[in-house]
Amino acid sequence: MIKIGVIGYGYWGPNLVRNFLSIPSCEITKIAEIKSENLKELRKHYPTIKTVTNADEVIEDKKIDAVIVATPISTHFKLGKKVLEANKHLLLEKPMTSSLSEALSLINLAKKRKKVLLVDHTFLYTDAVQKIKKLIVSKELGRINYFDSTRTNLGLFQKDINVLWDLASHDISILNYIISEKPLSVQASGVSHTKNKLENIAFITIKYPSGLIAHSNCSWSSPVKIRLILIGGSKKMVVYNDVEPTEKIKVYESGYKFINSKDPDKIRIDYRIGDINIPKVDLKEGLSSMAKDFISAIKYNKKPVSDAQLGLEVVKILSLAQESLKKGEKPVFYK
Amino acid sequence: MIKIGVIGYGYWGPNLVRNFLSIPSCEITKIAEIKSENLKELRKHYPTIKTVTNADEVIEDKKIDAVIVATPISTHFKLGKKVLEANKHLLLEKPMTSSLSEALSLINLAKKRKKVLLVDHTFLYTDAVQKIKKLIVSKELGRINYFDSTRTNLGLFQKDINVLWDLASHDISILNYIISEKPLSVQASGVSHTKNKLENIAFITIKYPSGLIAHSNCSWSSPVKIRLILIGGSKKMVVYNDVEPTEKIKVYESGYKFINSKDPDKIRIDYRIGDINIPKVDLKEGLSSMAKDFISAIKYNKKPVSDAQLGLEVVKILSLAQESLKKGEKPVFYK
Amino acid sequence: MIKIGVIGYGYWGPNLVRNFLSIPSCEITKIAEIKSENLKELRKHYPTIKTVTNADEVIEDKKIDAVIVATPISTHFKLGKKVLEANKHLLLEKPMTSSLSEALSLINLAKKRKKVLLVDHTFLYTDAVQKIKKLIVSKELGRINYFDSTRTNLGLFQKDINVLWDLASHDISILNYIISEKPLSVQASGVSHTKNKLENIAFITIKYPSGLIAHSNCSWSSPVKIRLILIGGSKKMVVYNDVEPTEKIKVYESGYKFINSKDPDKIRIDYRIGDINIPKVDLKEGLSSMAKDFISAIKYNKKPVSDAQLGLEVVKILSLAQESLKKGEKPVFYK
Amino acid sequence: MIKIGVIGYGYWGPNLVRNFLSIPSCEITKIAEIKSENLKELRKHYPTIKTVTNADEVIEDKKIDAVIVATPISTHFKLGKKVLEANKHLLLEKPMTSSLSEALSLINLAKKRKKVLLVDHTFLYTDAVQKIKKLIVSKELGRINYFDSTRTNLGLFQKDINVLWDLASHDISILNYIISEKPLSVQASGVSHTKNKLENIAFITIKYPSGLIAHSNCSWSSPVKIRLILIGGSKKMVVYNDVEPTEKIKVYESGYKFINSKDPDKIRIDYRIGDINIPKVDLKEGLSSMAKDFISAIKYNKKPVSDAQLGLEVVKILSLAQESLKKGEKPVFYK
Repeated sequence: MIKIGVIGYGYWGPNLVRNFLSIPSCEITKIAEIKSENLKELRKHYPTIKTVTNADEVIEDKKIDAVIVATPISTHFKLGKKVLEANKHLLLEKPMTSSLSEALSLINLAKKRKKVLLVDHTFLYTDAVQKIKKLIVSKELGRINYFDSTRTNLGLFQKDINVLWDLASHDISILNYIISEKPLSVQASGVSHTKNKLENIAFITIKYPSGLIAHSNCSWSSPVKIRLILIGGSKKMVVYNDVEPTEKIKVYESGYKFINSKDPDKIRIDYRIGDINIPKVDLKEGLSSMAKDFISAIKYNKKPVSDAQLGLEVVKILSLAQESLKKGEKPVFYK
Repeated sequence: MIKIGVIGYGYWGPNLVRNFLSIPSCEITKIAEIKSENLKELRKHYPTIKTVTNADEVIEDKKIDAVIVATPISTHFKLGKKVLEANKHLLLEKPMTSSLSEALSLINLAKKRKKVLLVDHTFLYTDAVQKIKKLIVSKELGRINYFDSTRTNLGLFQKDINVLWDLASHDISILNYIISEKPLSVQASGVSHTKNKLENIAFITIKYPSGLIAHSNCSWSSPVKIRLILIGGSKKMVVYNDVEPTEKIKVYESGYKFINSKDPDKIRIDYRIGDINIPKVDLKEGLSSMAKDFISAIKYNKKPVSDAQLGLEVVKILSLAQESLKKGEKPVFYK
Repeated sequence: MIKIGVIGYGYWGPNLVRNFLSIPSCEITKIAEIKSENLKELRKHYPTIKTVTNADEVIEDKKIDAVIVATPISTHFKLGKKVLEANKHLLLEKPMTSSLSEALSLINLAKKRKKVLLVDHTFLYTDAVQKIKKLIVSKELGRINYFDSTRTNLGLFQKDINVLWDLASHDISILNYIISEKPLSVQASGVSHTKNKLENIAFITIKYPSGLIAHSNCSWSSPVKIRLILIGGSKKMVVYNDVEPTEKIKVYESGYKFINSKDPDKIRIDYRIGDINIPKVDLKEGLSSMAKDFISAIKYNKKPVSDAQLGLEVVKILSLAQESLKKGEKPVFYK
Repeated sequence: MIKIGVIGYGYWGPNLVRNFLSIPSCEITKIAEIKSENLKELRKHYPTIKTVTNADEVIEDKKIDAVIVATPISTHFKLGKKVLEANKHLLLEKPMTSSLSEALSLINLAKKRKKVLLVDHTFLYTDAVQKIKKLIVSKELGRINYFDSTRTNLGLFQKDINVLWDLASHDISILNYIISEKPLSVQASGVSHTKNKLENIAFITIKYPSGLIAHSNCSWSSPVKIRLILIGGSKKMVVYNDVEPTEKIKVYESGYKFINSKDPDKIRIDYRIGDINIPKVDLKEGLSSMAKDFISAIKYNKKPVSDAQLGLEVVKILSLAQESLKKGEKPVFYK
């Protein structure tokens, strides 16, 4: 029985706890949370789980094997480091850390201590993303030409990160999971309508050597919730609408290819417009698979699907976007 | 009776002809078109209209009062200049010209000759855009924070202009019509999947001194047709979905405003989420109103809704986007 | 060159004329219409077609080979009879006639005179219905269990027929085209909110010996336009949404079958829920294919897709629905 | 503190338990359930609630004030009677009983014992239905002309009741809640594709003296889930789409009224098509309000919103539909 401690029972913590509780081979023995209203809620639902207000009481607990850190991003590095140094497995909420060097440092520490380090990029565990990855790996889509995402809603304005770290992080994790290429450059634009200067509307454009262009349009200020990703391949295209309750993925038998011609005036495009297929997608929560993956990575000493390296890549691209925003919204090179 | 000549009966020409024919106070007397298949189609539908293959035969026709130019953009300046020099009123298809100086030159010529110069930015004449303008002018939306447009479809790859000149031109014309401010900077990113290097996917971001950010995501390579504009005001927000057959505009009683506070850590946002109103929108073609506007601008010597100055502003911003694309996708300043 | 005369240029007439004009091997030589505003419209669009105000001038014209009758249903029999007796081919708007005996009489007359008699059930000519028929004929759907249609809108209240004759007639024609079985019984319910007692909301239920149940919910009084047919087979199900611009047909890999068991308490249902397929549907107007079918039926002396026998079946079922409405909404037997 | 016992922890029981547990002034002290898998699930979630396998252990428990019966309908009367005879308040799952006489007997018993008897018609407690009732009571919709409901999905085939008792019961409860009139007649049609002869597809038509017509199309055999009610008033119309996540109710400023005229040939309809309003609807579970209503009915001795009389009316109309199905699908009179 793997014993789990949790640090942070705010917005996402309750979902993590609920999902880990449904796994037979683990138990949650202690949860640290500061806010009294969250603690009250926690005790009402789970009267048998021990609660504390200090994270160290979880980290230093000898009986705990693994710790879930679901706190604001600025605390990820400090808490994560302590957890690994206490020889415990670590599950970090996404994004992994606020800087590349912190992420690197945690990866090295996890390697040295031979501990599992999983970053909770939940989307990778959804059946929708799994199906899209299969379509790409099997070459069914052909060469990938673009990835175009829109993530808007009237959202919580976060206090420590901008909208790209909050929302584009999902797209970047998916991109890293389904595309093997590394980017060429990252450009970001945005605007903050708040005093704290954190962008509440922002766009990121990532270019790749192959000609792939990825774009993510993120907003906390839209009256409508949109979660729409278009992926264009040379053979087929995918529309992934996460707001749609059952028909999340549509695969269009319509790609475009260009017939080679030496004369640049002659563009000849070959469209193939055919049927649309809506594959059956398992609607199970991604979080549930993530929880199982963490536990079996611990039990069987295997690499989790959403491993630390992917988490680091996400931080790297978000940091480049941040740099672009600071440098007058110019593109910055990936390496 | 105003006598009209038309140059170009290709993609858009037939729509222009059909709409002008339904106006009692004008008649179309001559149409110039090169392609024989288009001429054949034209003669079948309108056996009584005279056809020629040379534009000059229209321009030099003494009996013609006004000329409609619906040819590729590269020919707009040359043809437009001749039309005005022949002392005829001029209707140019959008975008007005390929460069700012050409646009300026035509405006001056039109002024000197006292001729109407209308650029066919059809969207301005739709009831949807008219209603949005009213909502903004009446301050019902409050301060405008963002304008976010998506225009994607599996489109015709144009041979002489990229996707921004084709599609973002609509957004820029609407922006210029509904917003009085001038931009601060323009940034564009894009990719061409064709030999001729014209971007088939591109994004433009326009920033304004007030903090307004405008973004347009344009693609000829999407399996789904999207025509969606979100406009966020401090009091209300508008969703304009042009693909929706009847409920094109939704007005959300949900804006966001920020309560002033000196401490940047304290963001306090005040959301007001209320009813949604779907105003009745007249579904009449914008083109029909544009045609009427051109004729009455000629008859009553008045400024048309989509006047040359607006057409020039669109060319200016598209040229800046072009410059941004050439300069490594950096933002360029408006003046 | 087949010469065609048209009687009636009101609501549907212009669509018929436009489509027949695009067929090279026929020409429209004369159109009869009473209302002056319709005649004015007609002359504006087609200045070269001769117009008359008396139907007989079309019927008695020796140079005319075929006559299209697009007048109110009450005149169909009288006009149709005259046309056939004048040895001309006949295209009747749907529904064919107001009574079964009239329909029968026209069929016999057409046979005697060896003339084509086509009833314009346009839906049969759409690619959507053609694809559904193929799915049924090829047994891909399995045994058909139900046909469930909803046709509502804020419609024109017709003056001579109720909403079933107007809207359910489409469903009955489709049913007759895709199902080979004859009904067992017909039941109708409805209500009239008008002085003339014609139902503006009505429902028809048709039962078949195999257990197939067909239902059509028709309304001229709905604020939303719905055109939705669900067809349930034992293997697959079809959703045909005619309001959807491009994805009109969805084929669900989910049927239900019942595992036989002698104990009635034990129902064991086997659902198979799988992918959804959206076949590419040609969006060409059905009317265009219908026009071609009429011309080639004349030229090659062959049976049209929407032949008179199908038109008669539709009248028969509508008459039974009428009888049910009169007899206190009781079901009436088909024969 | 009101002490509650629950009989039945199958499909709906867990939802009832969860909602009652969130009310501070009551507690659930005992739950009776037969199936061991359900008991296991129950104990995992609520380790502190006592479980039994015999309903009588709940009913005879002296410390229990009120009992929730969430068992198959055939057991409602027997269990309900025992609960009331044990001087406890009673909450019955819908439909109330399988027959009118049983419902009547329970009502009389509750009156005699002065106990609350609530039938859980949850929809009445949703904000959507509350808003619709207000629109009708305030005369904003005008005279109600029709109520048209579609409830289809690929559902659980119930073993003891047909699809009308399962799904149309929702519509009938809503109708009874928003309309004060009593019906004139009830007609039902349907088909059973199962051995047990319970209809899995059925339609019910209810006519009212005022001319109001109500129709409900119910199916357990549809590949798509539809929950759509159209309500047509003489001034405005309401579309209530319960599948829509946020925009559940749309109010159309388009009614139809008929201008009086003695000549039945002259129908003159006056449509007013205007804006659409989407009122903000509180998305809170109806069940939560129902639970609170039951508790406060007990505490303050007041009539609950979904009282026994309404539950009885639903049973009465469902029984008439049953009678219609048996009598060859003829309409049967309400009294």
